[in-house]
Amino acid sequence: QSVFADAGGFRIADDDGDYQLRIGGDLQTDARMLLGDTPGTSSSFFLRRARVRLSATLQRRFSIRFMSDFGRGQATIQDAYIDFRFGSGLSLRAGRFSTPLGLEFLQSSNATMHVERGYPTAFVSNRDVGFQLYGRTLGQRLQYSVGVFNGAPDGTSLDGDATPPKDLIARAFIEPWRNNRDASDWLRGLGAGLGVSVGTERSANGSSGLASYRTLHRSALFSYRGGVEADGRRMRLVPQAYYYAGPFGVIGEYALSQHDVQRGDNTETLAHRAWQIGGSWVLTGESASYGGVSPENSYDPEAGTWGAFELSAKVQRFQFDEDAFPQYADPEAQVENGTSLAAGLSWYPVRNVRFMTVAERTTFGGTEAANARDAEHTLTMRVQLSY
Amino acid sequence: QSVFADAGGFRIADDDGDYQLRIGGDLQTDARMLLGDTPGTSSSFFLRRARVRLSATLQRRFSIRFMSDFGRGQATIQDAYIDFRFGSGLSLRAGRFSTPLGLEFLQSSNATMHVERGYPTAFVSNRDVGFQLYGRTLGQRLQYSVGVFNGAPDGTSLDGDATPPKDLIARAFIEPWRNNRDASDWLRGLGAGLGVSVGTERSANGSSGLASYRTLHRSALFSYRGGVEADGRRMRLVPQAYYYAGPFGVIGEYALSQHDVQRGDNTETLAHRAWQIGGSWVLTGESASYGGVSPENSYDPEAGTWGAFELSAKVQRFQFDEDAFPQYADPEAQVENGTSLAAGLSWYPVRNVRFMTVAERTTFGGTEAANARDAEHTLTMRVQLSY
Amino acid sequence: QSVFADAGGFRIADDDGDYQLRIGGDLQTDARMLLGDTPGTSSSFFLRRARVRLSATLQRRFSIRFMSDFGRGQATIQDAYIDFRFGSGLSLRAGRFSTPLGLEFLQSSNATMHVERGYPTAFVSNRDVGFQLYGRTLGQRLQYSVGVFNGAPDGTSLDGDATPPKDLIARAFIEPWRNNRDASDWLRGLGAGLGVSVGTERSANGSSGLASYRTLHRSALFSYRGGVEADGRRMRLVPQAYYYAGPFGVIGEYALSQHDVQRGDNTETLAHRAWQIGGSWVLTGESASYGGVSPENSYDPEAGTWGAFELSAKVQRFQFDEDAFPQYADPEAQVENGTSLAAGLSWYPVRNVRFMTVAERTTFGGTEAANARDAEHTLTMRVQLSY
Repeated sequence: QSVFADAGGFRIADDDGDYQLRIGGDLQTDARMLLGDTPGTSSSFFLRRARVRLSATLQRRFSIRFMSDFGRGQATIQDAYIDFRFGSGLSLRAGRFSTPLGLEFLQSSNATMHVERGYPTAFVSNRDVGFQLYGRTLGQRLQYSVGVFNGAPDGTSLDGDATPPKDLIARAFIEPWRNNRDASDWLRGLGAGLGVSVGTERSANGSSGLASYRTLHRSALFSYRGGVEADGRRMRLVPQAYYYAGPFGVIGEYALSQHDVQRGDNTETLAHRAWQIGGSWVLTGESASYGGVSPENSYDPEAGTWGAFELSAKVQRFQFDEDAFPQYADPEAQVENGTSLAAGLSWYPVRNVRFMTVAERTTFGGTEAANARDAEHTLTMRVQLSY
Repeated sequence: QSVFADAGGFRIADDDGDYQLRIGGDLQTDARMLLGDTPGTSSSFFLRRARVRLSATLQRRFSIRFMSDFGRGQATIQDAYIDFRFGSGLSLRAGRFSTPLGLEFLQSSNATMHVERGYPTAFVSNRDVGFQLYGRTLGQRLQYSVGVFNGAPDGTSLDGDATPPKDLIARAFIEPWRNNRDASDWLRGLGAGLGVSVGTERSANGSSGLASYRTLHRSALFSYRGGVEADGRRMRLVPQAYYYAGPFGVIGEYALSQHDVQRGDNTETLAHRAWQIGGSWVLTGESASYGGVSPENSYDPEAGTWGAFELSAKVQRFQFDEDAFPQYADPEAQVENGTSLAAGLSWYPVRNVRFMTVAERTTFGGTEAANARDAEHTLTMRVQLSY
Repeated sequence: QSVFADAGGFRIADDDGDYQLRIGGDLQTDARMLLGDTPGTSSSFFLRRARVRLSATLQRRFSIRFMSDFGRGQATIQDAYIDFRFGSGLSLRAGRFSTPLGLEFLQSSNATMHVERGYPTAFVSNRDVGFQLYGRTLGQRLQYSVGVFNGAPDGTSLDGDATPPKDLIARAFIEPWRNNRDASDWLRGLGAGLGVSVGTERSANGSSGLASYRTLHRSALFSYRGGVEADGRRMRLVPQAYYYAGPFGVIGEYALSQHDVQRGDNTETLAHRAWQIGGSWVLTGESASYGGVSPENSYDPEAGTWGAFELSAKVQRFQFDEDAFPQYADPEAQVENGTSLAAGLSWYPVRNVRFMTVAERTTFGGTEAANARDAEHTLTMRVQLSY
């Protein structure tokens, strides 16, 4: 029986590793300033995430993960699932967890490029309750997931009680050269994949089955008119890729979210879409990666070491279906499209801590002038620790 | 100072066991299908329970238990109590915990025969805040509990702020042959007991002091008419027994819940009642018990071992007092009685994990045809892990 | 790597102590009786606090504290912050934590003299999200804190989303003789300090920016008239001191809370104030302290030892600004001032456990007879365990 307390976290385990308990947590404190005429909620300090994680492995084959969150003062359960490992490369997951669709959504919130995930995450389902088969195959090169879920509307998480039909969600992601031993191989860090969800959604039990959408900083962006309801198929396609080479990284994805909607006797198939692409450069030379940056030398002023620094920039754009206006959404009140530019600087004094500053500017528009509104300018500072 | 990580759970302790901390959790993921014309909420996947448990013992005499639950996306505290061990056979418990009334209610939710506890649990108080003396005596053969509690309405749990009068709740449960060494003794696994609650309940602070009742799968079943209020005595009697012999088990209880109610100038004493009896058979030969099934050989396909399998069946019936109709409850809208039949199959691949499927059919009726409504048919699958 | 399980708590750590995880909790179960004609909520048993604490230290310089609370059945986050130790005597704290103002508010709830903190705590901000520099200097004699926070109204805690202007809060507390080696030195346990908050508060987003006030046992005490709003400066001054000598302790503070308010065209600067002073005597001779009482001999009836006993008494008074009446508050409905007297007896059977009984009487009055109302008489018993 042994105990681990180090940069890899806190664990107790038996000698074989068949039984293992791990305790962790994430804390992200944000200071968000709205600049200029930015509409919406006020500048504020807040806990963006305050999470406790408990993971246990039992008899090697079974494991459980539990993550609660008290961010923004709301007590929620984020992850709560059981994994059953059938053998090498195939597992069953049951419970509440991240749906396998978006690339940035599946990245740890401690490792995302900027303080908030981009618009593609607003057009995919987030966490949901369901059952998923998943694993890695082809010498770890291919990750795959196929699952059935309640079916959450765009950008939201569900705890059950959905409308009856379920969603089928699948994702494949391939890193063809990931096993190359030669670290200098310039294709080693390339990965690409596709997430797909198909399902049927109808309004039921007083829920329209449709989402409302918000800006990166939680101002209202787009809502359907009253009386608009889901009326059949919902389909999402999310092509995605990243590429990491030494201190440089690029990550991008595209999300298409298509819905059959109805209002009175009218029906329509609406397709909303968003994309983003971002690049980062670790100034101090450490490797960039999907999992985050780990400084080579921890912050230690006496030794003259300062940890790692990283620069990043991102561009993204979203477009609600033009056919939504004016029948299904009010062009006087709802935005049709927008473009966001952001730049960030991160400091990683030690492996578990990150200080980040991000400046972001989002402009809004539409084919009708009425869709436009004042740009959203924000400057956010985050102090983050995870273990 | 030592660490334990095994099938018995995760603990750290000092060498004497005077100080001990234990971390555990329960996760139950359900897929519930409503079949046929079953009324109520839709078929859904959901987290039935997502619990974290922390138990600590300090200086041997004092211990604390803390269990939060995030099931169905609601953050709640289930257990939070302090135990003070005076000596052998006598302890004081203070805090929020299960009231000592129902037999199935006091059983771990990981060990109950089916996915939901039966109707008798709907007619007893569930968790409540109070103070209780309890212990075991007569060579461990007699369990007893006597406590004073806020006084929760039928089938509910309270966090305080009840109406002023308190409830006295007591329970005795005897297993006369439990100490017989001879495992083949056919009376060894027999236990029987009685739970009793007495108290006064009156409407106060806008609360009627009365409960509404739901079916096993949370559809509305019985509510009093508006303006009906608790008006004096509340009394409950819960005779109960179980019998375990080798792979076979039988468990049954009866709950009588009697209330003085008032509506305008009318008053009445209403007695609602429910009973259930269930049997189980561990097909693979392991012992059945109130605490659950522990497979002799864990799931290991290479070794040709598959864990344990269990069959179970249950019948139950509830009856609201006929005198409630039509003065205190609307026979057009409320059910008067019902019968439920269920059968289940469980697979225990390892000690901490259970897969369960339960099919259940409940029919509803009453002396007036209007009480009847469509039967509730459900098929539920559960994946469960506790540690 | 090592494990600790003792009266100091439960921890796992690496050999250097650079990495450390600590798990703790607090549970307080109260039985509160309202005596006589006391207005307000009913006598009740309730969980006053049910807290889980996780603290971790990473690479010595960084630490995190997470404390959730399920008291009264509400899931909340109390503390969630990151500490960054720059060097000896200077740290940065970021997250949600106690604002550095009131002396009793900053004391552990396990160590406060009586079951509820006094009226001065109702006139300072409680927990808030912000950033604070703090430390000890002058040979540990001076504690200092300077921080910027969202700015919580009197007696409340915030999770973010405040009105835009922020509050600056600072506190200094000096114990000039704390380092004296001679334990008999009669000045060794003397400390005194001052807390100050300054900020601007205006109504925004539908919030008036002003607080309502409650009695010690949560009955409504003072609310502004509808339409009264914060209109500018908010300032608080909290002089404070304690003195501990052997088994005797005295603790006192004064809180002045000044607000610019507006109603229609009228504006006014209102100053509310409260003070308290309390004394305690550990009958069994152990040292009294700000951190609580630790019994010399634990409860052990066979050995004839019974732990520690403590007597305490407190007087306090609050006064709302007379100029608030009748323009900003209704003298028919709101109290203007009050005085509270309380006496308590505590038993500490072991270091982590406390049984406490407190009797309290608060009388209410004002310059107009209409302000007066029935006195609040309460008798509260608490069972408390912390580890």
